[in-house]
Amino acid sequence: MQTIRLGIAGLGRAFSLMLPTFLADARVQIVAACDPRETARAQFQADFGAPAFDDIDALARRPDIDTIYIASPHQFHAAHTRIAASHGKHVLVEKPMALSLVECDDMIDACREANVHLIVGHCHSFDTPYLRTRALIASGAFGDVKMIHALNYTDYLYRPRRPEELKTDKGGGAVFSQAAHQVDIVRMLAGSRATRIRAAVGNWDVKRPTEGAYTATLWFENGAFATLSYNGYAHFDSDEWTGWIGEMGQTRNANEYGGARRNLSGVASEEEEARLKAAGTYGGNAYTPASKAPVLRRHQHFGPLIVSCELGDLRPMPDGIVVYGDERRERIELEAPVVPRAEVIDELMGAVHGGIAPLHDGTWARGTLEICLAMLRSSAEQRDVLIGGARSITEEH
Amino acid sequence: MQTIRLGIAGLGRAFSLMLPTFLADARVQIVAACDPRETARAQFQADFGAPAFDDIDALARRPDIDTIYIASPHQFHAAHTRIAASHGKHVLVEKPMALSLVECDDMIDACREANVHLIVGHCHSFDTPYLRTRALIASGAFGDVKMIHALNYTDYLYRPRRPEELKTDKGGGAVFSQAAHQVDIVRMLAGSRATRIRAAVGNWDVKRPTEGAYTATLWFENGAFATLSYNGYAHFDSDEWTGWIGEMGQTRNANEYGGARRNLSGVASEEEEARLKAAGTYGGNAYTPASKAPVLRRHQHFGPLIVSCELGDLRPMPDGIVVYGDERRERIELEAPVVPRAEVIDELMGAVHGGIAPLHDGTWARGTLEICLAMLRSSAEQRDVLIGGARSITEEH
Ligand SMILES: NC(=O)c1ccc[n+]([C@@H]2O[C@H](COP(=O)([O-])OP(=O)(O)OC[C@H]3O[C@@H](n4cnc5c(N)ncnc54)[C@H](O)[C@@H]3O)[C@@H](O)[C@H]2O)c1
Ligand SMILES: NC(=O)c1ccc[n+]([C@@H]2O[C@H](COP(=O)([O-])OP(=O)(O)OC[C@H]3O[C@@H](n4cnc5c(N)ncnc54)[C@H](O)[C@@H]3O)[C@@H](O)[C@H]2O)c1
Repeated sequence: MQTIRLGIAGLGRAFSLMLPTFLADARVQIVAACDPRETARAQFQADFGAPAFDDIDALARRPDIDTIYIASPHQFHAAHTRIAASHGKHVLVEKPMALSLVECDDMIDACREANVHLIVGHCHSFDTPYLRTRALIASGAFGDVKMIHALNYTDYLYRPRRPEELKTDKGGGAVFSQAAHQVDIVRMLAGSRATRIRAAVGNWDVKRPTEGAYTATLWFENGAFATLSYNGYAHFDSDEWTGWIGEMGQTRNANEYGGARRNLSGVASEEEEARLKAAGTYGGNAYTPASKAPVLRRHQHFGPLIVSCELGDLRPMPDGIVVYGDERRERIELEAPVVPRAEVIDELMGAVHGGIAPLHDGTWARGTLEICLAMLRSSAEQRDVLIGGARSITEEH
Repeated sequence: MQTIRLGIAGLGRAFSLMLPTFLADARVQIVAACDPRETARAQFQADFGAPAFDDIDALARRPDIDTIYIASPHQFHAAHTRIAASHGKHVLVEKPMALSLVECDDMIDACREANVHLIVGHCHSFDTPYLRTRALIASGAFGDVKMIHALNYTDYLYRPRRPEELKTDKGGGAVFSQAAHQVDIVRMLAGSRATRIRAAVGNWDVKRPTEGAYTATLWFENGAFATLSYNGYAHFDSDEWTGWIGEMGQTRNANEYGGARRNLSGVASEEEEARLKAAGTYGGNAYTPASKAPVLRRHQHFGPLIVSCELGDLRPMPDGIVVYGDERRERIELEAPVVPRAEVIDELMGAVHGGIAPLHDGTWARGTLEICLAMLRSSAEQRDVLIGGARSITEEH
């Protein structure tokens, strides 16, 4: 069997969310890792009997690795991609791809020159309900996409954070972290190039001074438009509209309420909060390993979303797609995934071993970052921002 | 008991929706009516043993009337208000107030000069769940309003229409008819003057060439912003998110599907469609009178809506308000109304007999029309439109 021999850069929360995939997908072999946190390295060595380095160079030099999963903080994505590519490794890098378009261009160039694949993910646009919805649209059975409505109300801003996650100029806030998912999904479903955006962002908590919320309208070349709203200060939880199935496909308890704000209420300083985050992640003393017993999980998702086409509306849900046609309403049931996020490995395997061009490549993900940056700019400058496609952002005159 | 001695101008669908209120609210006495449709007049005479004229002048001359409910098509609202005022009658005029700001100014002036009240409604901003939510916000317990999200997915465009209801330049389409509700609700909850709007409208069915959908972002002086989305071409029905309680407070059957498109599918011409609309309304041969037996109805509404404040989110529902606080979630139960839309009569009585300035006066409703017109303009000109408050629309430079 063909496999991915994987090195991991960054053993934090993102890694802990991909770990169930790596463990359950036989196509993946975890070979080595790197992380500056000693406790994370110790846990990795214990769990996998495999080496863990304190920096990425040592990892990238390993000849027994063909792909590096870069799950370090945003600000390292560009440099780490360059290092991985320079050693001839394929790159799977977490969203957001990077913090600037210049960095994206650099990453795309580095991987092209090294002749390695660059895939950006996990991102929720990999989730099967969205991919299947895209296929339904592409079948032509529903006519053109006209309007997309996506919303997500979460406690995002009140989860424990590293200091830079609350500083926009360091890549903090909901636009870099969360719009990266929502924009990606919406672009994919619109099936057309975004040309224009108008957005408003909310930065409402002086103690956590970054964007926690936004709303945006996106216009596409094919005439469709989309509304994207996110509220990471929310008290209302939009999982109420996805059958109380959470972002990770887990069954939520509708009666648990207010946990994030409660957990955070005792925290006195940035450092204490960063320690709280690290304690709950891989290698931390409050870390709960992914259970090996099969847990019933549905597909992952990023909030309620409705795609309105000429001849029907499509509503991807964690356990099915509701197809509202002119004459009747149907449900396409989606079986619960055996391996969570297997779609990421599918795309990686297709690229590395199957000669199949990945959807979520560098150019694609650059397009999403361009829209996220334009969102911040539109809000600050109070005007539409034109999206330049492969070129840089064009000024509106 | 003090009463409203009411004359009715226009015995169509709007009247049939207010009729249960007029019948059940002892404060209202129906005295006379006018309508050019002979069958409607005959039914009115039979039902009320009261006179029905074929034009509004004869109605307005009646000394036994103190208030005229103007429920004629939009394009007559201004002229009919002027006639009513010139005879010293108070005016309750249906939404939208009129088709242009000049008409609104004229209506406001005419009523001021005649020293009569001008109230614009019914509009869903009269619905108790929104009024109570407004009061909760005004209490200060939740801090400032930051973000409002309102959406409504309906079959609006496929209900039988008069020809002008499908012509934007005659006041047709979802912006004039439906945004009139949604904008009014959102403005009221924001509790601040709207200063700016950016919108996109959808005009997607060549056979019904007017706006059936829109999305808009509204910015308010107090820093809040709001997202308003409406899809009247929808196949998905957002009553799914209001517990299958419909716009009129009625219990919907979740299994009934696609009725509007089905009903319309046999219709061959504009005239036939207008006849179909008239047949189903007051005096028409397919009209079903409002039942006199008490029917359990909850409060009326205009789709899912979430108001996010600093210290909590508020979600008005047809049967309660869900209050999502920092620490806990509560539900304020709202008793089912005894008289539907009694809020309209409350406001009318308060103005006419109680010396209480109405919320939904001409100046207020003009503000809503200004935003609706700005929505059309923003979409056409692809830019923000500034809202001038009491002044006319200011150009962005
Ligand atoms: N797709 C998803 O569902 C998802 C979820 C969470 C985070 N992410 C993304 O993953 C990235 C990491 O975020 P996180 O929440 O896991 O943060 P985290 O702080 O939990 O994890 C980051 C890890 O990287 C390590 N690290 C720091 N500097 C490093 C370096 N120079 N080399 C190697 N490792 C280094 C840290 O010690 C830590 O273990 C971000 O880009 C974030 O957007 C994605
Ligand atoms: N608030 C609500 O829930 C609601 C619901 C429906 C309509 N409306 C509003 O009510 C108004 C009427 O719409 P509708 O759907 O009832 O239309 P409709 O066609 O059902 O009714 C209009 C009625 O006015 C009559 N009419 C026409 N010209 C007239 C005139 N010159 N004088 C007197 N009557 C005249 C018509 O014969 C008809 O009976 C519109 O402004 C609409 O926006 C409000």
